[in-house]
Amino acid sequence: MPDTSAYWNPQRELRDPVEREAASLAQLQKQLARAYTLPFYKRHWDAHGFHPDQVRSFDDFTKRCPIITKKMLVADQAEHPPFGSYLGIDRSDIWHIHGSSGTSGTPTMYGVAKQDWDQAREIFAMTHWASGVRPNDIVHFAFPFGLFFGGWAMLYAAESVGATVLPMGAADTRRHIEMIYKMGCTVIEGTPSYLLHMAEVAQDLGYDTAASPLRVFLSGGEPGGSIPSTRQKLLDTWGLKTVCDAGTTSEMFPFVTNAECDQMNGTHVYNDEVWTEIVHPDDPANLVPEGEVGNIVYTHLWRISQPMIRFASNDRSFMTSEPCACGRTYPRMPRGLLGRADDMLVIRGANVFPSAIEHALRGVDGLGLEFRIRVSRRGNLDEIAVEAELSSDFLGSAEDRERVRRRAADELKTRCLIRIPVTLVESGSFERAVLKARRVIDERPEAVAR
Amino acid sequence: MPDTSAYWNPQRELRDPVEREAASLAQLQKQLARAYTLPFYKRHWDAHGFHPDQVRSFDDFTKRCPIITKKMLVADQAEHPPFGSYLGIDRSDIWHIHGSSGTSGTPTMYGVAKQDWDQAREIFAMTHWASGVRPNDIVHFAFPFGLFFGGWAMLYAAESVGATVLPMGAADTRRHIEMIYKMGCTVIEGTPSYLLHMAEVAQDLGYDTAASPLRVFLSGGEPGGSIPSTRQKLLDTWGLKTVCDAGTTSEMFPFVTNAECDQMNGTHVYNDEVWTEIVHPDDPANLVPEGEVGNIVYTHLWRISQPMIRFASNDRSFMTSEPCACGRTYPRMPRGLLGRADDMLVIRGANVFPSAIEHALRGVDGLGLEFRIRVSRRGNLDEIAVEAELSSDFLGSAEDRERVRRRAADELKTRCLIRIPVTLVESGSFERAVLKARRVIDERPEAVAR
Repeated sequence: MPDTSAYWNPQRELRDPVEREAASLAQLQKQLARAYTLPFYKRHWDAHGFHPDQVRSFDDFTKRCPIITKKMLVADQAEHPPFGSYLGIDRSDIWHIHGSSGTSGTPTMYGVAKQDWDQAREIFAMTHWASGVRPNDIVHFAFPFGLFFGGWAMLYAAESVGATVLPMGAADTRRHIEMIYKMGCTVIEGTPSYLLHMAEVAQDLGYDTAASPLRVFLSGGEPGGSIPSTRQKLLDTWGLKTVCDAGTTSEMFPFVTNAECDQMNGTHVYNDEVWTEIVHPDDPANLVPEGEVGNIVYTHLWRISQPMIRFASNDRSFMTSEPCACGRTYPRMPRGLLGRADDMLVIRGANVFPSAIEHALRGVDGLGLEFRIRVSRRGNLDEIAVEAELSSDFLGSAEDRERVRRRAADELKTRCLIRIPVTLVESGSFERAVLKARRVIDERPEAVAR
Repeated sequence: MPDTSAYWNPQRELRDPVEREAASLAQLQKQLARAYTLPFYKRHWDAHGFHPDQVRSFDDFTKRCPIITKKMLVADQAEHPPFGSYLGIDRSDIWHIHGSSGTSGTPTMYGVAKQDWDQAREIFAMTHWASGVRPNDIVHFAFPFGLFFGGWAMLYAAESVGATVLPMGAADTRRHIEMIYKMGCTVIEGTPSYLLHMAEVAQDLGYDTAASPLRVFLSGGEPGGSIPSTRQKLLDTWGLKTVCDAGTTSEMFPFVTNAECDQMNGTHVYNDEVWTEIVHPDDPANLVPEGEVGNIVYTHLWRISQPMIRFASNDRSFMTSEPCACGRTYPRMPRGLLGRADDMLVIRGANVFPSAIEHALRGVDGLGLEFRIRVSRRGNLDEIAVEAELSSDFLGSAEDRERVRRRAADELKTRCLIRIPVTLVESGSFERAVLKARRVIDERPEAVAR
């Protein structure tokens, strides 16, 4: 019998996968019947000749139920403001209102029922426990608390676990650092970019980051937590035992869809909460074979407010059913989320992911924290180039510098399979992101016009 | 029998005051015995020859129990970091860590137990209900969510009431305004300065603020909500039905100590939660007679983490036991908090409160939102002068302008009892505060050196 203290809900986490899937299918059928009463889904499904009765298996679901996209949700909210015709509850039953950052126009609005929030809090508590968070931990939040979902669900989850929370939110970086050391924070939640930036500032202030009180980093908002070289850098820089990545997307929030345990070998896909399919990029009615990369399609099995049924997220990943040493019986995404499909750059026919460039650069000694990827067009040809900061303590000669540059170019060639010119710049040249880092500068005419 | 739907907890709110006070005394005796086990109180009380057994009445308490000050707490935290020797619970039992803004040095740290937080949430829910907040309201938070206590306790209280919450926190003013109208927010919480600033921006953007969906403003952080002319301006500008002020101070947080009901005739002093005395400024062992202004001394009756016993807050007010039309049987502060004792300016022997200047200026037609109070020294004499913005739609002649200036000077003379020269400046000359407005510019040598 396993030591159940490793699990928040052993019955759920160690359940026989076949049994779990059968229960999830029964729940899916109920959820589809419910969603069909919402105007948004009724219209869309009727137009595609889909009816919930057609689903007798998950295979039926993939083959027959049409996907929905962010674009459709935005259009529906414009027509039926502010929550769209897929709200699913009385407006007065909304517990929390949140919204997207709306940087590219009107924010998308999220109305979440108390029941959903409680269920989301429970699954996030489960993932916190799996990452090693315990009641005697002090959990520092570097995610902001505002309109954006940010740190809210994780905060409530850490409260549920019984840990002490320090909800710093958006604060001055030096104040964050001061509090980590002064309070003896053992767990921190934020984006990997910001954690690395914070380390840089802390070191400048004279802190020994490798001897920090932090033990666990719960990473989100960017793929960095699952990029091996970035993870290693985080582990070493802050002297951590564990870096756990978690994947979700605003439309699925406050639910986490997949998250790592302290074994750090990929995220567990909590598919009894959010059913998760990996489909062909060009054909969402077909799954890719196990182990192949495809696009992720998410379905809330339980959510009553704004339930997402086959939401095409644009996230990419691959899945495996190989067991994890932790004993949890969920499938896994061994490399987490691989970056969003729409982050992919197509350069002279090759697919280049910014996350692959990050991975390549993090492995090069002498390089610093930040870099930029510049994409431009010369005639009819797309060009890509990387500008990378030297590390702040780099004191080498011009020859050493050239060696670093060549090493970076070689790593990029190995990881990305195309030649990418590298320029080195001084440490501190690029802005540090408090939230998600924006590292791609796309100067191609169609990108600038967007 | 009263209509009990007006009360969150009718049994508690309508209780016979004599009975309530007897119960509070019994609780105080328990609380004192408990506090005496904490090193901070043991040391302080032993040094003053005070022992909990000496308290057989509230009169004994006032006469014998020594006060504590912010300075003492800061010194104790420096000696026993980070929470002081008055924490009162195991560190691992802290649920939330918060801190003061620490603008003048090291932040004071607050460690609050779950039990205390739940009790604070309950009393804040009671005050929300008394202000007219109901489950079908949408409550917009313009208080920030971070290290500072800010909006946290009110957020949790609004959740308890069952209202929909929109936790905007620190956000762009235009985004706040957009959300008020788009979501149809009916309740808003923030500082009065910020609400007035928000109205100015909204009007510039073309919004009809008097026809806003807002009905209730829960005011905090500044005395403005209790200043009659500021309250009237808030009511008119945003087309509100109710502006309710609430008073507390970081050391007493997350507990509210006094708050208004929708009758808007002063704050109810919730003295079965926080025992509240009004004492002579020079002698905290003596209460002032009912109706006289004095300094407020607070005592947590129930709090187990960092309990404050006779905390001298520097807030000033006066109390009455005259009944309120709402039926609640708590004593009242008819004018709320009158500004902090240490905000008081002594000008040529006269005591001048910035809140009195605010009240005088708000009543003058033609004046705008912001003003500054400049205090300087000429020779051995302190000088005070006011610079006030004209309203943004002021289009009068030079003569009209002079009329406004004279009217302002007259109002100041009436309210403050000394002559204060007034200069008018254009609308928008002064910075708008997102949190507490800082309107006093003290140029006297000792103030600059501080």
